[in-house]
Amino acid sequence: MGVMRIGHVNLRVMDMDAALRHYRDVLGLLVQGSDDSGAFYLKGWDEWDKYSVMLSPSDRAGMNHVAYKVEYDSDLDLFKDRLAEHGVDALLEPASHLPFCGRSLRFSLPSGHEMYLYADKERVGKAVGDQNPDPWPDGLKGAGAHWLDHVALQCPFDPEKGVNTVADNCRLLREALGFYLSEQVLVGPDADIQAVAFLFRTSTPHDIAFLPAPTCGIHHASFFLDGWSDVLKAADVMAKNRVKIDVTPTRHGITRGETIYFFDPSGNRNETFAGLGYLAQPDMPPITWTEENLWRGIFYHTGEAHDSFTSVYT
Amino acid sequence: MGVMRIGHVNLRVMDMDAALRHYRDVLGLLVQGSDDSGAFYLKGWDEWDKYSVMLSPSDRAGMNHVAYKVEYDSDLDLFKDRLAEHGVDALLEPASHLPFCGRSLRFSLPSGHEMYLYADKERVGKAVGDQNPDPWPDGLKGAGAHWLDHVALQCPFDPEKGVNTVADNCRLLREALGFYLSEQVLVGPDADIQAVAFLFRTSTPHDIAFLPAPTCGIHHASFFLDGWSDVLKAADVMAKNRVKIDVTPTRHGITRGETIYFFDPSGNRNETFAGLGYLAQPDMPPITWTEENLWRGIFYHTGEAHDSFTSVYT
Amino acid sequence: MGVMRIGHVNLRVMDMDAALRHYRDVLGLLVQGSDDSGAFYLKGWDEWDKYSVMLSPSDRAGMNHVAYKVEYDSDLDLFKDRLAEHGVDALLEPASHLPFCGRSLRFSLPSGHEMYLYADKERVGKAVGDQNPDPWPDGLKGAGAHWLDHVALQCPFDPEKGVNTVADNCRLLREALGFYLSEQVLVGPDADIQAVAFLFRTSTPHDIAFLPAPTCGIHHASFFLDGWSDVLKAADVMAKNRVKIDVTPTRHGITRGETIYFFDPSGNRNETFAGLGYLAQPDMPPITWTEENLWRGIFYHTGEAHDSFTSVYT
Amino acid sequence: MGVMRIGHVNLRVMDMDAALRHYRDVLGLLVQGSDDSGAFYLKGWDEWDKYSVMLSPSDRAGMNHVAYKVEYDSDLDLFKDRLAEHGVDALLEPASHLPFCGRSLRFSLPSGHEMYLYADKERVGKAVGDQNPDPWPDGLKGAGAHWLDHVALQCPFDPEKGVNTVADNCRLLREALGFYLSEQVLVGPDADIQAVAFLFRTSTPHDIAFLPAPTCGIHHASFFLDGWSDVLKAADVMAKNRVKIDVTPTRHGITRGETIYFFDPSGNRNETFAGLGYLAQPDMPPITWTEENLWRGIFYHTGEAHDSFTSVYT
Repeated sequence: MGVMRIGHVNLRVMDMDAALRHYRDVLGLLVQGSDDSGAFYLKGWDEWDKYSVMLSPSDRAGMNHVAYKVEYDSDLDLFKDRLAEHGVDALLEPASHLPFCGRSLRFSLPSGHEMYLYADKERVGKAVGDQNPDPWPDGLKGAGAHWLDHVALQCPFDPEKGVNTVADNCRLLREALGFYLSEQVLVGPDADIQAVAFLFRTSTPHDIAFLPAPTCGIHHASFFLDGWSDVLKAADVMAKNRVKIDVTPTRHGITRGETIYFFDPSGNRNETFAGLGYLAQPDMPPITWTEENLWRGIFYHTGEAHDSFTSVYT
Repeated sequence: MGVMRIGHVNLRVMDMDAALRHYRDVLGLLVQGSDDSGAFYLKGWDEWDKYSVMLSPSDRAGMNHVAYKVEYDSDLDLFKDRLAEHGVDALLEPASHLPFCGRSLRFSLPSGHEMYLYADKERVGKAVGDQNPDPWPDGLKGAGAHWLDHVALQCPFDPEKGVNTVADNCRLLREALGFYLSEQVLVGPDADIQAVAFLFRTSTPHDIAFLPAPTCGIHHASFFLDGWSDVLKAADVMAKNRVKIDVTPTRHGITRGETIYFFDPSGNRNETFAGLGYLAQPDMPPITWTEENLWRGIFYHTGEAHDSFTSVYT
Repeated sequence: MGVMRIGHVNLRVMDMDAALRHYRDVLGLLVQGSDDSGAFYLKGWDEWDKYSVMLSPSDRAGMNHVAYKVEYDSDLDLFKDRLAEHGVDALLEPASHLPFCGRSLRFSLPSGHEMYLYADKERVGKAVGDQNPDPWPDGLKGAGAHWLDHVALQCPFDPEKGVNTVADNCRLLREALGFYLSEQVLVGPDADIQAVAFLFRTSTPHDIAFLPAPTCGIHHASFFLDGWSDVLKAADVMAKNRVKIDVTPTRHGITRGETIYFFDPSGNRNETFAGLGYLAQPDMPPITWTEENLWRGIFYHTGEAHDSFTSVYT
Repeated sequence: MGVMRIGHVNLRVMDMDAALRHYRDVLGLLVQGSDDSGAFYLKGWDEWDKYSVMLSPSDRAGMNHVAYKVEYDSDLDLFKDRLAEHGVDALLEPASHLPFCGRSLRFSLPSGHEMYLYADKERVGKAVGDQNPDPWPDGLKGAGAHWLDHVALQCPFDPEKGVNTVADNCRLLREALGFYLSEQVLVGPDADIQAVAFLFRTSTPHDIAFLPAPTCGIHHASFFLDGWSDVLKAADVMAKNRVKIDVTPTRHGITRGETIYFFDPSGNRNETFAGLGYLAQPDMPPITWTEENLWRGIFYHTGEAHDSFTSVYT
């Protein structure tokens, strides 16, 4: 019972052909279909539901919504009530409002992002099947990403004006939706302002991250790779395809993850994230990073500020 | 609410000095203390509770019990009732019955194994701490195993005589304890006899496995490594320490895990298991292996029988 | 001036279609052409000469000859003289005697193997080209082997009868052809019988190996992979293609190499060998393995005998 | 006969304690001793000669000299003549002029760097010995670098003024010392100005590199690691030790090598370089990079200029 994991992200792209070349040929997602609006649906080879990425044609980049999957349809009613108790007015949408999904619960995070919960999505199975499966399918393209791992959202943050939607989001997800806090950054003279929050429902270090920003946006959508050798291959693939790389292979202090940051042709930041990192658990003591170690937490190897990393987003 | 993960395994060893050299210097666990009975308590560097391995001196090898950690103390009462509904009489033991733990729920699996649930164990923290942690601690020994990952239990199985405690255990854990089935092997003329079952509560492919055997026992206790390069290092460390290796580095079909099997000095089989494998989820279609692919499932690379692997256990 | 490296091996195969599927689709070699005799020529993507593997149709498996490439055509005359000084009668063959090659020097090793030296072979270039090359080409199949790395030859050995062609070969290659000894196994009551010899001309641990056997044959032909993660991929590819694996991924003590042994459809043993191991140099002290550590040298992880490994060859 | 490999580099450091902590605890070199001048001698665990790094106390950073090892003492006389034929006046120095070495040949490259050749250096053996060696020794510190791999030298280059000591050095090493060209960058309107040259004598992609610069200096000294997983560990070690990292883990286009660039406490740039890359051979077609692909050649993943990388050196 409860939220299981990230279900999909709906990204806006400005050139669908270029976007498909990127998500299909570079990231290695599998195109599952398109619809009359011109949107395309893609999934990782290791996912069993119809899509985890929905690309919508638009004249600007960014994220329309992010959706998390819950275990039971009845969870939606429960979460509607829980959200209401926390002052969030959620709307139950009928089946197919989210394409290929059952009914869904729609609401806005304190940061302004649109979020959905849903329990059912058309099932197509993993590319390796569920009978005597091989460990990986033949014919994978590019980086061969396994699945959509998480999104990191830019949340309005101006503590001097009393605005901290990082903390607001974090509280809501923990109290109303049963998320757990894995890591946070505390800043300010008293080290009591939560400027970054990582939360999970699976056993991985994060299923969603909230970052401080001037305005609401998406910092990145992240895709899972097995390990560090796949990170090198992914970076090679990006180089071959002249993908704009933001941050070459390195390790995060936060989550321990092995990472590459890069941009899709519309300027949406993507990440490939490798390794389990650690086993996140409800009783794990949350990890706290101090302000002076913020960049060590973000980029463990250099520990140095990379300003465009925080200022550029969609 | 519910079972979170494996908490510890209590293994019997016949030579404590040799056992400590093995679990501490080869696997790289950290000794946390001992008690008047001569038992020693060890944990992986990435675990925060006081121990995940309890070694008890004995004149024979094997497992005394395995314990799983639940989220809330009140879960124990709930599970006592649930087990009773399934005909299993569970006993609530007082705090400290399980060393360094709060009260616990004790019962026998249909296979005869003793299992505990508990909600509280003395907390000592990860070796890297929870403030600005490094991704790994200095001074690790041997393979530097992160945590106890799972146990695989040998379960009496003789379908011709109507005995299948693999299936009995599987049903009980799914129905009474909320476990999910990730993979199974179905055998017999109608491919309807569940001979192997892998179950999970975390998002990893298994937290417990049930294997068919003539008698109740433990097949192996498994410890987590990050990835395939750690598997090579672990095998090198075993070679340097003249550890008896049962199966050199290879991949499982079942779980996709990268593995080494080897024995502790008392003959208890251990495994080092690397990689997340895949993200196990309640709604993932369970994977089924057919009888003719059984060995491909166990040892993906050769697909060949390795008889001592199934016949030797403690 | 002198021998540079292994140039090619000419293997006999009994089913050419099956052999091509193996060397092309599993090992990932690139087919460069065939000739009127039905022979096929293949190369690794990272090789620039036309072929390193010549497959000849036959009714039995095994090796027809192995050829090493020298730097200058005039080296052939020099080596003819040097071999004669050591009692070996070498024959200068005209251009095209070795297909697509210039003139060649042909002789028999003391072990009975036919060996060639040649200075020129038709050049086709690496698959990545030599202008702004990518680190690896698109479209590689299977294990994507880089190049033919070495052969290991079975050499008649019966020291009680005064026969040791391992030592005879070793002496000839060192004294007449400028090879260097990297590693050896010394056996016998006085540890003075050279039972295994590894020699090099490149800076890698071996370009040829001589092993003791009842009769002349080939133990294996070995192909280079970058590293341990490529070994896992190669083993997965073999499993998918139901290749008969002799030894799953492990490490050699001798050379430190990371290895898989397996058979082509005709029963010729192949190896994928990964990693530089160490930088072999003329002044490196040769490494000696003692008889009781022989199997530790062969299979470092287990250190155990694997009898078919020494008794089965073609 | 001829040059075998790089023998050692003599670097100037301004704080010997800090330098030792760096080269010993971060890079993992083994201190072999010191002398009355305050210089320290270090080697990689996989090297057999007494030292490959000589650290000399100084008030400024940089390189005093680099030395290459030849196979035979008589090679020194031969190379003295060959250098003279190319207008380079080389001086034969007596034994012990280079510490712990036999006699040596001393000369200046056209770029102004001091270079030595020598045939003998005191031998201490690999840390794993040469009898039944383990693949790696216990107790390694930090990155556990295997050996000094190469140096890259900054060579005065101003083609408009007719100065190109990159090309001059390259010609001299090829013609007088038997080096081979593996890769080069050609620039200028006619793409005929050799601005970068990589040369080798071992079978690795480079044993020395010449880069264009305003003045004579050292760009970096590079140390070998086995593979990409060791690169991650090395970067983690640098982060733990707060080493100033110049370039986080990435791949070179030139040589395909996997790399990290960082600085010793005096500001000398170091590199850890992993992987064989490819098998360099005298007959391998040299690889040419064009001016517009220069940065792709240097940093394959981004292909972007990193100005301090070329402007900062010692």
